[in-house]
Order: sequence, then structure tokens, then C-alpha cells
Amino acid sequence: MNTSQQLSPFNGPGPCLRDRGESKIIAQIRETLSDATLPSPFGMGDDCAVLPLSAELGPLPSGLATVDALTLGEHFSADCPPALAGRKLVHRNVSDIAAMGGRPEWALLTLLSGGGLRLSWLDAFIGGIRDAAIECNMRVVGGDVSALPSDLFSSVLTVHGSAQTPILRSTARVGDTIWVTGSLGGSLWGHHLTFSARVEEGVWLAQNVPISAMMDISDGLAKDLPALIPKGLRAELELAKIPVSKAALQKAANEPGLALHAAFCDGEDYELLFCTPPHTHNWLALWQQTFPQTALTAIGQLVSADNKSAATTSLLFNASTGTPLTFANGYEHFRSN
Amino acid sequence: MNTSQQLSPFNGPGPCLRDRGESKIIAQIRETLSDATLPSPFGMGDDCAVLPLSAELGPLPSGLATVDALTLGEHFSADCPPALAGRKLVHRNVSDIAAMGGRPEWALLTLLSGGGLRLSWLDAFIGGIRDAAIECNMRVVGGDVSALPSDLFSSVLTVHGSAQTPILRSTARVGDTIWVTGSLGGSLWGHHLTFSARVEEGVWLAQNVPISAMMDISDGLAKDLPALIPKGLRAELELAKIPVSKAALQKAANEPGLALHAAFCDGEDYELLFCTPPHTHNWLALWQQTFPQTALTAIGQLVSADNKSAATTSLLFNASTGTPLTFANGYEHFRSN
Repeated sequence: MNTSQQLSPFNGPGPCLRDRGESKIIAQIRETLSDATLPSPFGMGDDCAVLPLSAELGPLPSGLATVDALTLGEHFSADCPPALAGRKLVHRNVSDIAAMGGRPEWALLTLLSGGGLRLSWLDAFIGGIRDAAIECNMRVVGGDVSALPSDLFSSVLTVHGSAQTPILRSTARVGDTIWVTGSLGGSLWGHHLTFSARVEEGVWLAQNVPISAMMDISDGLAKDLPALIPKGLRAELELAKIPVSKAALQKAANEPGLALHAAFCDGEDYELLFCTPPHTHNWLALWQQTFPQTALTAIGQLVSADNKSAATTSLLFNASTGTPLTFANGYEHFRSN
Repeated sequence: MNTSQQLSPFNGPGPCLRDRGESKIIAQIRETLSDATLPSPFGMGDDCAVLPLSAELGPLPSGLATVDALTLGEHFSADCPPALAGRKLVHRNVSDIAAMGGRPEWALLTLLSGGGLRLSWLDAFIGGIRDAAIECNMRVVGGDVSALPSDLFSSVLTVHGSAQTPILRSTARVGDTIWVTGSLGGSLWGHHLTFSARVEEGVWLAQNVPISAMMDISDGLAKDLPALIPKGLRAELELAKIPVSKAALQKAANEPGLALHAAFCDGEDYELLFCTPPHTHNWLALWQQTFPQTALTAIGQLVSADNKSAATTSLLFNASTGTPLTFANGYEHFRSN
């Protein structure tokens, strides 16, 4: 796999997509995917992938499915090593499976590209997908290669997984403690390309902790946390406890307050955000023993919204002062203002 | 639903994507999808869709999955009614499920777009998806909305289905008869926007006929049929029997030979192409009774490739003359030459 930083998607020497027929492109992708795909009829090469049944016995787990795009110029830049872009496509999708307490099983890959895409760049991108898929114990069983009318590149991965009991977003209750794994902010300085989806953590939490609700943080705590707050409740956050990443702290060296803003609003953290009922912290020592490298922080709790909060649209409050938090509302795609 | 032909994706009055936040866009899509989606946790609104289990009892059917993109400027033009574009996205994916003898069950929808996309156009596009999904008895259970760095629009649909016994492409044998449903060629003159995936026909064939192999025709008979021909065999086709569509005949009025070329190479026919073992034609009367509107034609058979065919790369031969057919090899994406 070539991860050379010199590879650029639409510039430089070597053959490009329009120099090959579709069948040869697909054959090359299949070869590069190697152990990350399955032989026919479970893999590529027919009208559909026939889905391999989970070998697990016992009660049938629930199926899970998610899809996410990764676009040049939006989610990674032209100078990003293609293998890291491929890795990111896999892990950001698998992060959604982890956020339900599930494990990924198989995926379908769609590539959309202008004809000028360098084949060497594409091969390194697919190599990154292969390595990440194997790392996540997932197989790429099918897909589609499709033309765009200009030299843009986008990729779409659909991931299917399963969970014994999927943990939803909508089931938190009053009095719940709010937790977050890892640290937040400054992802653009590297983490967004190198993070690993928290699959083992998510499965462990679903099995060992009375989780009431869970999600992953992709657009930033400020935008994502409200999705965990049922109607009539609000979150009171202890700002001093928010785990700010080293990258956000460094980025903010000369501007106090900016680091915390980054932790709330940068997005692409891909950490788990979840709630537990009151008086159920006795699992914490076991977590620290099982995941000594992964920080876990209680950042606040869910309380009843009173009249005071009716005057604001914010669902997030400073626990010390009782005032609403007025961060910009996370990352919104398409917004120009 | 507004299907006005005046709607243009990136021009004209009214708000566009970048005038809305992502959450409002998704809420609108969810509302427009209406009966074509499912309530949480089986529908949109969480990290993943939880997949509703098939209610069927008896032996578990095989799962099927397929994905296909539909891009403005590639698969439909800016003056195409958006509801028809949405319809096409659904039916071209479902056609792959039909080609395995299966039925569609649920889908994930990804939209990739520049911020200038008119919301009225998008709403009509989603309305077309909704109507087609309901027609196909399929639910859209999740998806992703993602930005493109310029004013292009693409959509990607992943469809999951099931079949009691999936019919593969790779299992044809020597002596098999080759059949095709409907008629071929000239799809660009309308059929590519209005066809219905042959779901009932595919399921009926899988249940009532000893099909040895099946696929759908998306890139044209010339390119697709070779995928049904096992190594060491070739197809001998009776050219006079190829069912040429009215559109291809009209298009070719002044150029003899062109109509047949269109039937082989135009693509986007979305008809079923399948093989049956010798001496198993007794089901034909029952077909005609069940699907009186759908033509079914035996167009040739699979024979052993002899030395003569080793001199050509063609797998398709004229049954009358014994000479290889030298049509251009169907529709190849990306090719500039």
C-alpha cells in the first residue's frame, strides 16, 4: 500500500480512471481489498451481495445499518494520505455502530469520482479501507463505482452490524449522569484521520453498565448532546470537567476560553456520549481496569427544565451558574452564514 | 409533491440547501418520506437504523444487499422531473434485488449536494423516492446528507432485501437456454425514467422455473450477458429473436442495423436476463398467464467454446453464421475514448 503524501487525487503522473474500463477498475478494487472482502456469492461480483449469516447461536441479535459519506474538500484535503482518508471512511461509519453498542459485520462501498482520479491514489485509498475493515473485523461485500461530471471525489460506505440490545439515543431519563469517553476538540489537527471507533468500549458498556442512552460525537458536543436530552429535560454541565484534548489546548494557547469552545464545537471527536441512571457508578473501577488507556468522564446530569429555561432555546446549562450555554450550535453542513 | 418540469436543481427562485441547517433538512426529508419510512428505532433519528426483522416464519431467507448511485448530469439531466429521478434511484437498485429472485425490504439514502440545491427540487425528488419505495413495499430507514464542494448533486441508495434461494450469475451450464424479459434498447428516450423493477417476475421465476442463473441488464446485453457465461462456454444468439424496443426501432428508422445495435449496447433496460437447463420450457404457458403484459423471449443458448472462439475475445456469437458478434462492449463509465 502506498501511503506517500505526494499522491494527489487529481494531479500528477500515472493513469487515471478514464484510462480504464469499469470492469478493470472493479477488478483492481477487489484485488486490493484482499482479505477485507468475501468470495462470491457473499462478496462482490453479482447483482447483490448475499449476506453471510452471523455464526452466533442463542437469541438473534438486532441488525444495525448506517451510512456516511467522505468527500474530498469536505472531510479530507487533497494533501491527505489516501490510506488515512480510506481509514477515516471506515471508522466514522463504524463509530455509529459502536454508539448503539454493536459490532460491524459487513459493508458496501460506493465511489463517486471524476474520470481524472489517479489510479495510484485510488489504490492507496482502497488499501486504507482494507486495513481498517480488517482491524474492525468487518468485510466489504459489494459496492458501486460511478462517474461524477467533474473532477470531484466522494465515497459512501454503508455498514451493517448487530447488537444484542441496541442502545438508543432517545431513552435517557431525569437524574441521569452524562459521560464522555476520551477528550474533545481540535480533531482537525490529526485525530479526525487517526481515531479508532470505540467498538470494544461500546459493547462493554452495553453489557456491563445500565446505560440509558448513547450516541457518538461527530458534530461536536454542543450540537450532539441535545439529541440525548428528552423533552422537558435539560443538561447541567460542569464545565471544569469537560475533557479538553491536548490539540485543542495547544491551539488555544493564546486565547483563553477558545479551548473549551473547541471541545464543544469542533466536532469529529468520534467519542461515545452516554447516560447512566443515578447511583450506578460501581462499574467505574472495572472500566478503568478494562480500558486503562481510555479516559471516561462524568460531565454533568439531566435535570427537569424549569420556567427559567423556557426563556431560552438552549438545552445545555452551566451547572455552577445556572445560566444557559450559548456556544454556536456545532457544525452544520451547507450553512454559509 | 411538486413534479413540475420547471423545477431545476441549481437555478431558479426559492430557498436552497445552504439557507437551512442540516437538522431542518433531515426533518423535512423525514416528513416528505412519510409512510415510506418507519418510526424510531427502526427508522431515522439514531446513530443506526435498527433493522426490523422479517415477519416470515419458516426457514430463514438469505439477506441481499446492493447499492447504486444516481448523479445529475450522468444518470438524469437538469430538466428531468425530480420525482422521476427519485423513482429511478429506487427502481434501479430494486432491479438488482429482483435479479436475485428477491424482494426489497429496507433502504438507506445518502444525498451529496452543493449548497445551491433548491429545496423545492429536493422535496420533489424525495417525494419520487417515497412513492417508488411504497410501490416496491420497501422502507427507507436511514441515511446521510453530505455537502459537495461545488454545485453537483448525487444520491446513493443502499437496498436490503431477501430471497428464499438467491439466483446467482455464476451458475449457468452448457446447453442452457438464454431468456430475456421485455424489450431492449432506446431506454434514454424515456424507459430509463419510468421502468418498474421486475420484482414479481423475478420471484415467480425463482419459485416456478429451474433457473440456472439470472441478472438484470443495466449496461446493455453486449456488456452484461458475458457475466452469465461460465469459462469454457460461449453464447450463440439468434439475432432475429432479440426483442428490440419500439423506441430503438423508431430511433433507427433511417439506419438499418442501428436498432439491433441499440438493443445490445444502449443499456439501462433493467430487464431480467436468465438461463434455464435444456428441455424445461413447460412453464412458459403459466408465465404468459401470470404476466400477460411482459414479453419473454428465448434469444439463444450456451454452448462449448471451441478452438474457433479462442481466436476472439468475444463470448457472443451469431447462431446462424457462427461468427463472433463485434458490438462495442456496452456502456463503460469513465471511458473517454
